Amino acid sequence: MIDGIKEIEIARSGAGAYGVARDLLAVEEPLEIRLEWTEGGEQRVATVAVTMRTPGSDIELATGFLFTEGLVRARKHIVAARSCRSGSVRVVVAPDVTIDLARLERHSFTSSSCGMCGKTSASALRTMSSYPLRAGEPLVSEPLLRSLPERLRCAQPAFDATGGLHASALFDLGGELVTLREDVGRHNALDKVIGAELLAGRLPADERILIVSGRVSFELVQKALMAGIPIVAAIGAPSSLAVDLAREAGLTLLGFLRSDRFNVYSGAERL
Amino acid sequence: MIDGIKEIEIARSGAGAYGVARDLLAVEEPLEIRLEWTEGGEQRVATVAVTMRTPGSDIELATGFLFTEGLVRARKHIVAARSCRSGSVRVVVAPDVTIDLARLERHSFTSSSCGMCGKTSASALRTMSSYPLRAGEPLVSEPLLRSLPERLRCAQPAFDATGGLHASALFDLGGELVTLREDVGRHNALDKVIGAELLAGRLPADERILIVSGRVSFELVQKALMAGIPIVAAIGAPSSLAVDLAREAGLTLLGFLRSDRFNVYSGAERL
Repeated sequence: MIDGIKEIEIARSGAGAYGVARDLLAVEEPLEIRLEWTEGGEQRVATVAVTMRTPGSDIELATGFLFTEGLVRARKHIVAARSCRSGSVRVVVAPDVTIDLARLERHSFTSSSCGMCGKTSASALRTMSSYPLRAGEPLVSEPLLRSLPERLRCAQPAFDATGGLHASALFDLGGELVTLREDVGRHNALDKVIGAELLAGRLPADERILIVSGRVSFELVQKALMAGIPIVAAIGAPSSLAVDLAREAGLTLLGFLRSDRFNVYSGAERL
Repeated sequence: MIDGIKEIEIARSGAGAYGVARDLLAVEEPLEIRLEWTEGGEQRVATVAVTMRTPGSDIELATGFLFTEGLVRARKHIVAARSCRSGSVRVVVAPDVTIDLARLERHSFTSSSCGMCGKTSASALRTMSSYPLRAGEPLVSEPLLRSLPERLRCAQPAFDATGGLHASALFDLGGELVTLREDVGRHNALDKVIGAELLAGRLPADERILIVSGRVSFELVQKALMAGIPIVAAIGAPSSLAVDLAREAGLTLLGFLRSDRFNVYSGAERL
């Protein structure tokens, strides 16, 4: 059985009668991300997020989330990261690292007024990345890009089994798969990928192409920018704010990627 | 131009050269949901959520969110709901209504330990609905269910245009469309539908079939239960926790709904 998949008994409709069948489901369970840091000489601990995720790569998910949210800015800031029990990951940062929990406010409720609302421009919403993109670099070929959906499909075992998982994958400029992760949540799948690269010391991912299996939102482009990824290609459609952010940041954004075509929403100079 | 859609200029790859083309995008922008209530004789106001949504039906989205999260339990508790400026909705509740912001904790960070983590059973995570389902009621026919994807597609103008929107739709037991809403976020689309029913005084939606255009997560089943919806059918796959919750609550959950077949994950007695 592949990780993150659960088998159950269901009924299947079809020609007349219902047949009993076995079916494979994508597992969805909560993960608590706990952060430990030092503030004014005192130990602090907080649950910074609870996300509904597919189990597997939990430490990558937790560290990737902290990194793409701008709470932890570098691999060396992480002293330890461990699954302390099922459904919980604890990440400990170095004593000299300052943690600003207010960064999470756009995801959560606050008791005061919200600085984000009314600002609908993409730049007002973004967290600045440590890895600015280089204009016009790297270059990629159109045939290589068009070959990636098939390569992604071949490498995505759980989706094939359940039809219920999003994938995020980094490919190198030669079209070789570097890192692939799946999750019921598209943000989680990308956080797992970026967490894996962070922990492996492979950031910025500035010589990589990111493929996402579904649609691409503002949040996904934002996360890609945090990791220094210059090219994002989606199998599905982008949102308006995803395009706005990609154009402002100079990121190459492709949509509806197929073996014979794609749309270029931003950054055509890398093609 | 349909609401929630934006036209931009893009490049389109294909046979050799790139052609410049016009493309339609699903609009994604932040909405702040503000709540006003009375506590110990004092006026309180809080931003309870900021959600990235497709503009349109903002008041329905805000009230639907508050209702499905269990913060507001009835139509009569809402004194006023208005868009106070672009990107913000303010909902005022009656003076005698108690608001428990801790209900939102599973979505947000907290400074203490989280009561949810480690509890992976669906029942431990759910918010109890005011509208318990009736066992085995209502009954629906298989041909009617199989006709609904086509009816949904015909009624979903923005998705046709952009390929980038999720839909949630309520149909009555005769297969007539009651309420349809679209959004870049699947949770938002369902909150808009439930908010519309709440404001129209049509809850519980206990004689309705909910169709969702994509996959179905725990959160979507949870929201359906809050509105008393007995039957949920998804065009895509359910997650494991969505099935667990549906089985515990006695909700009929169908997946991979097509014109010639579907899977029954829970509640076959209503078919």
